[in-house]
Amino acid sequence: MTALVSPEVLSQVKGWARYVEAKLGFRNHWYPIRFAHEVLEQTPVPIKLLGEKILLNRIDGKVYAIKDRCLHRGVAFSDKLECLTKDTISCWYHGWTYRWDTGKLVDILTNPQSIQIGRHNVRSYPVQEVKGIVFVYVGDREPTDLSEDVPPGFLDADRTVFGLHREVASNWRIAAENGFDAGHVYIHKDSILLKGNDIALPLGFAPGSSAQLTRSEIEPGRPKGVFDLIGEHSVPVFEGTIEGEVKIRGNMGSKRVAENISMWLPCVLRVEPFPNPGLTQYEWYVPIDEDNHLYFQTIGKLCPTEAETDEFKQEFDEKWVSMALHGFNDDDVMARLSTQRFYQDDRGWINEILYEPDKSIIEWRRLASEHNRGIQSREHL
Amino acid sequence: MTALVSPEVLSQVKGWARYVEAKLGFRNHWYPIRFAHEVLEQTPVPIKLLGEKILLNRIDGKVYAIKDRCLHRGVAFSDKLECLTKDTISCWYHGWTYRWDTGKLVDILTNPQSIQIGRHNVRSYPVQEVKGIVFVYVGDREPTDLSEDVPPGFLDADRTVFGLHREVASNWRIAAENGFDAGHVYIHKDSILLKGNDIALPLGFAPGSSAQLTRSEIEPGRPKGVFDLIGEHSVPVFEGTIEGEVKIRGNMGSKRVAENISMWLPCVLRVEPFPNPGLTQYEWYVPIDEDNHLYFQTIGKLCPTEAETDEFKQEFDEKWVSMALHGFNDDDVMARLSTQRFYQDDRGWINEILYEPDKSIIEWRRLASEHNRGIQSREHL
Amino acid sequence: MTALVSPEVLSQVKGWARYVEAKLGFRNHWYPIRFAHEVLEQTPVPIKLLGEKILLNRIDGKVYAIKDRCLHRGVAFSDKLECLTKDTISCWYHGWTYRWDTGKLVDILTNPQSIQIGRHNVRSYPVQEVKGIVFVYVGDREPTDLSEDVPPGFLDADRTVFGLHREVASNWRIAAENGFDAGHVYIHKDSILLKGNDIALPLGFAPGSSAQLTRSEIEPGRPKGVFDLIGEHSVPVFEGTIEGEVKIRGNMGSKRVAENISMWLPCVLRVEPFPNPGLTQYEWYVPIDEDNHLYFQTIGKLCPTEAETDEFKQEFDEKWVSMALHGFNDDDVMARLSTQRFYQDDRGWINEILYEPDKSIIEWRRLASEHNRGIQSREHL
Repeated sequence: MTALVSPEVLSQVKGWARYVEAKLGFRNHWYPIRFAHEVLEQTPVPIKLLGEKILLNRIDGKVYAIKDRCLHRGVAFSDKLECLTKDTISCWYHGWTYRWDTGKLVDILTNPQSIQIGRHNVRSYPVQEVKGIVFVYVGDREPTDLSEDVPPGFLDADRTVFGLHREVASNWRIAAENGFDAGHVYIHKDSILLKGNDIALPLGFAPGSSAQLTRSEIEPGRPKGVFDLIGEHSVPVFEGTIEGEVKIRGNMGSKRVAENISMWLPCVLRVEPFPNPGLTQYEWYVPIDEDNHLYFQTIGKLCPTEAETDEFKQEFDEKWVSMALHGFNDDDVMARLSTQRFYQDDRGWINEILYEPDKSIIEWRRLASEHNRGIQSREHL
Repeated sequence: MTALVSPEVLSQVKGWARYVEAKLGFRNHWYPIRFAHEVLEQTPVPIKLLGEKILLNRIDGKVYAIKDRCLHRGVAFSDKLECLTKDTISCWYHGWTYRWDTGKLVDILTNPQSIQIGRHNVRSYPVQEVKGIVFVYVGDREPTDLSEDVPPGFLDADRTVFGLHREVASNWRIAAENGFDAGHVYIHKDSILLKGNDIALPLGFAPGSSAQLTRSEIEPGRPKGVFDLIGEHSVPVFEGTIEGEVKIRGNMGSKRVAENISMWLPCVLRVEPFPNPGLTQYEWYVPIDEDNHLYFQTIGKLCPTEAETDEFKQEFDEKWVSMALHGFNDDDVMARLSTQRFYQDDRGWINEILYEPDKSIIEWRRLASEHNRGIQSREHL
Repeated sequence: MTALVSPEVLSQVKGWARYVEAKLGFRNHWYPIRFAHEVLEQTPVPIKLLGEKILLNRIDGKVYAIKDRCLHRGVAFSDKLECLTKDTISCWYHGWTYRWDTGKLVDILTNPQSIQIGRHNVRSYPVQEVKGIVFVYVGDREPTDLSEDVPPGFLDADRTVFGLHREVASNWRIAAENGFDAGHVYIHKDSILLKGNDIALPLGFAPGSSAQLTRSEIEPGRPKGVFDLIGEHSVPVFEGTIEGEVKIRGNMGSKRVAENISMWLPCVLRVEPFPNPGLTQYEWYVPIDEDNHLYFQTIGKLCPTEAETDEFKQEFDEKWVSMALHGFNDDDVMARLSTQRFYQDDRGWINEILYEPDKSIIEWRRLASEHNRGIQSREHL
């Protein structure tokens, strides 16, 4: 079994080797995978998470998840779905039949007295639904509380969340570092969000060299993450100067956004306010496999009343999807696709040259290396 | 040169390691590759067998086979066919000219005095035509009699055989085990063959635990194979029960078929009667390369007279092609494509969990490991 | 880091192991990459050479070349071109800004006080334009004079050169050996050039076994190359005989061409006269990556006056492009694609069987192994 990342590479990135090793993501964490409305009653949905093929299904309102692979000859249940009872799925090949809730092999239709019945379980995955999102836990340990794997405040009672998701052909870390990278504002300088929403956005930041540019939170029982403080300790750069002459300018606007940016384990960014004062963007870079992630974008707002929720929903649909989640973030998607080529064979981790605004990324790599709950490997697939 | 299958995997499947090693098939055996009518006089046909590119041609009625690769710079003759005499093929690149019958390099058109002339032979392969099928022998040893590499009775004088073939994207062993697997009847439960031909087919079998479920034939000078006796020693299962309730039923019909099922080296299944009383299905899973096999499907019938042969031909064309070879067996093709994903990196051989009806497959793996005449490796290509 | 070619293969080709190792080409040499008219003022052109992604640009008439990869996070500048001043290119991701002439990192638009500014250079490549061709030097040593890397006479003052280029899916050495191979005239026997231009071309050559078939030039400070003398020391073969009977004939014509054929480091063939008396064909097989080369085809003529140049241009456009560079050489392209399959996994270098006319190829391999200025490896990419 070939290692996901060569020992030669790992030996050269001592400060965050476990992060570099986590090409398939971190085990024993919760990941958002679909919106609740996408998983309908008795309608199995195949997904891939940390390289594992998984099948979701909703039964009597509750969502279950099992590994999408029969124990017998390894075929995917989803290649030809056969659910003969509400509580079970039968493999289309030899009729091995499993319960959705436990994964237990309860019957074999082609050999009803088989000694294998009752002796095996297909892997089942803990599932939680909150804020209209289906979260799946991939790991071996007893699941932690979901609140430890989302940014602080995300679960607040009055917070309403809407979003969308899409598959992007880059490793999840390339995406996480794109999102958490203060210097990358530069790629958004022509975004329709800036003009259309009257937002101020500098080209970059001129950090004082001695400033503390990050702050980590690693309290037990709480989310683990890193705040990027560059905005507080820098002069925002609105004039781009080349060899002494100003050649490009940042976007002036009346609204200030993105003043508080933080990155949390396992793979979620919080930006507030964004894309507008009063809103918070939460976005996950969920590992699908080595070369693909699910870009799970959401915007949250405190909506104490139903009327406010309805209003926000309308605003989300009519404005933020096109202007922010696509208009702004499509630039990020392009950047990840481009960056992926440099890191795909893992040599980018050695050959990159970082600069001051990357201190937040370095701190994120260190925190993730130290506080993750396990590394996904090929043996787990 | 990387091994086809890693030593790590081979060490974990001790009972049938040589079978697992045989990703490219077994050497020193006969394989069907085309029907006789597909190889026309002086019309070379490129094929691939056990990973080797081969060129067939018919000269004065007899079929010859040579390696489709010039000895000089390795190009395929078939990239641009040049046959300047009936008995030879010349490489289009430098005019190296070989005889079809011996493979001998008899002339070099670009250098008629070359010392290489007469000193080399391109590999030629023994060929036999029987029952309207062209068989090719791949190996180094003196060919065995063809009768040792086909199921008993196949060559009987009065047996007429018709068929078709197609390339399927799975390893040949995945196909062999799909065909020989008693439990897989389950996938055929909705086949048009059952209704259209009034066939009884259970969902599966409930074998007594102590029954002898297989019988091997390994006599010297005779075909080597395994009979699956599960039909004799089991109660056929016509009711599929999940957690105590019947949820699905097998197909009742007036005809009984598939009562005698056996698998023979190198890769051929015999099912009789099938798809109808009085008929026998013979099908080969011929290795093309690691990830593809030629599914060579035939149906045989004893036809002592020409009139009976003509009648069978009409029945074959009008009924069995659509109802059996496609209507029934297309389900098998789908199953192989699905199973291939689990076994493609060879870990399926370790991670599978078998059950009672797989005893025939286990016995086949053992017999094939012990009685094959050689393992094809990359060095042979 | 996997070696480009396995040590096992290299150990079996002792006479020219460094040539076999040079799957990505030779370093410290000059390569033609585009015609001058293809590189327009302030219009960057991305190319690939010896596996390195490079960006060309013309500024105030002079062509520059830099590595098409930002030092920071490794993205390609060409994924989204941003040239904010004439003399610089800025990376679209974080605004790292480099000078075209030196590659120096002169500004970072997102962090104008970064300590990285002025401390790094993206690799820049020496460029020369001669005969309407842009040559790029890939290497670490001080560039040699261009005259050492082109065939003798190519740079003669009165020589006018026209041409075209295309990407072909074979390794560069397969192409070089196709071009320099005397025996391959056989593939051109039906070329429209022969009839359309009344050219005599034999099927091959019958060299005397003891003749000196090559002559190498390896003087210091001069181009290093091999002349194929087979034409002088052989009887041209106009009758192709198989088992004693003439079965095919070479092309008789009034013009004799290709009397002087030579191959030069790093990868350029000279054929004169060709495709007509008074013309010389120079063609390069420029390594793009392991499996592709740029086929850079040119025809040169001594044109002392502008009128002669104009006349040659018209003749080139109207006649030689279609009749020679395509009509004749497209056969060579086909041969390279076919040969590539045999050599792609490097085993062709061991399994080939050469013959007398391949002495020029063997001498070329030896000369290239000994006189190249360095082997391109994955570490250089």
